Amino acid sequence: MSKKAPIPLKDSCVEAAREVIAEKGLEALSLREVARKLGVSHQAPYRHYPSRDHLLAAVMARCFEDFRMHLESRPTSVDAEHDLGELGRAYLQYANDHPLEYRLMFSTPWPAPAEHPDLVRNAVFAFDVLRNVLRLLAGTMPPEEIDQRALFIWSCVHGLCGIRTGDVMQHLAIAPSVTDLPGEQVLAMISLAMRPV
Amino acid sequence: MSKKAPIPLKDSCVEAAREVIAEKGLEALSLREVARKLGVSHQAPYRHYPSRDHLLAAVMARCFEDFRMHLESRPTSVDAEHDLGELGRAYLQYANDHPLEYRLMFSTPWPAPAEHPDLVRNAVFAFDVLRNVLRLLAGTMPPEEIDQRALFIWSCVHGLCGIRTGDVMQHLAIAPSVTDLPGEQVLAMISLAMRPV
Repeated sequence: MSKKAPIPLKDSCVEAAREVIAEKGLEALSLREVARKLGVSHQAPYRHYPSRDHLLAAVMARCFEDFRMHLESRPTSVDAEHDLGELGRAYLQYANDHPLEYRLMFSTPWPAPAEHPDLVRNAVFAFDVLRNVLRLLAGTMPPEEIDQRALFIWSCVHGLCGIRTGDVMQHLAIAPSVTDLPGEQVLAMISLAMRPV
Repeated sequence: MSKKAPIPLKDSCVEAAREVIAEKGLEALSLREVARKLGVSHQAPYRHYPSRDHLLAAVMARCFEDFRMHLESRPTSVDAEHDLGELGRAYLQYANDHPLEYRLMFSTPWPAPAEHPDLVRNAVFAFDVLRNVLRLLAGTMPPEEIDQRALFIWSCVHGLCGIRTGDVMQHLAIAPSVTDLPGEQVLAMISLAMRPV
């Protein structure tokens, strides 16, 4: 009979922390609460995480890693313009399906980043997915123009995520053809912005 | 000697409510707390607001009115393309200077809107400022295309506001020429998207 290897405590702390946040909110997160959830001694999580902030940074770093892997698993396309659209769809889908993780990545104050290089690295890796698509799309464009486009596209899709979860849009008498598939509408406009000058 | 007319209770309740939210958070808002702040009887606010939600809707409606007036006071321009840039700058400025009001408008669950027509109307009036600029810019464009552009532009600037208040952007190694004036960078890209097809 095969026996499953137990999940190392370091990883199960991250999972338990994510559950604590989901169930009770970010302010309820503590190493003590995580220990209680896992049925281990109060001291045990401290072996891996010197403080609550270290654990929170690990949770956020995991979110960015999941997010990047989700973005990278989008349908493949050799056409860079079409690929950018697929990337946009994958982004909007993730935000829709994982509101907690999305908030943790983008609306949560970061624990002192200098102490959490994994978090910084994973966030950059996720952003690089967009940069890479833009490099293919734009050909020989200076890096700062790639970054300008990346910030712009990120703003668009991040803003739409906020608008979709809010109550305002549905009351502005916007044409139903636009609000029915707001993602497609916004992605079409991004595509217009990417036309060669 | 001239005598200032006292502010009607109905209006001072809105001001006091805004202060309660600023000082203690949205969850602390109640008609009782507002009465206490104004030094009036617990029953007095009920003469004008049947419930906390009615008062909250009045606060939000006031925010949308202030916001629209701020947008309309942008520097005048006869050039529609330049005017759209000024409108974007005015939007970003408001969000930067009035984070509480901005959150109340765009990140707060709306009290049942059917009961608060002033709130819906003021939100539409604010959105119409953008629609009107786009109508001048686009010439003879079907209303649903105007709305598509309006939703897109709103997404961009709303998203940038969220990104600017978050901690992520500064750690993505984005070119300083882009992060120094992210508003100008995003507005320039919006302008590219508005080019005639």
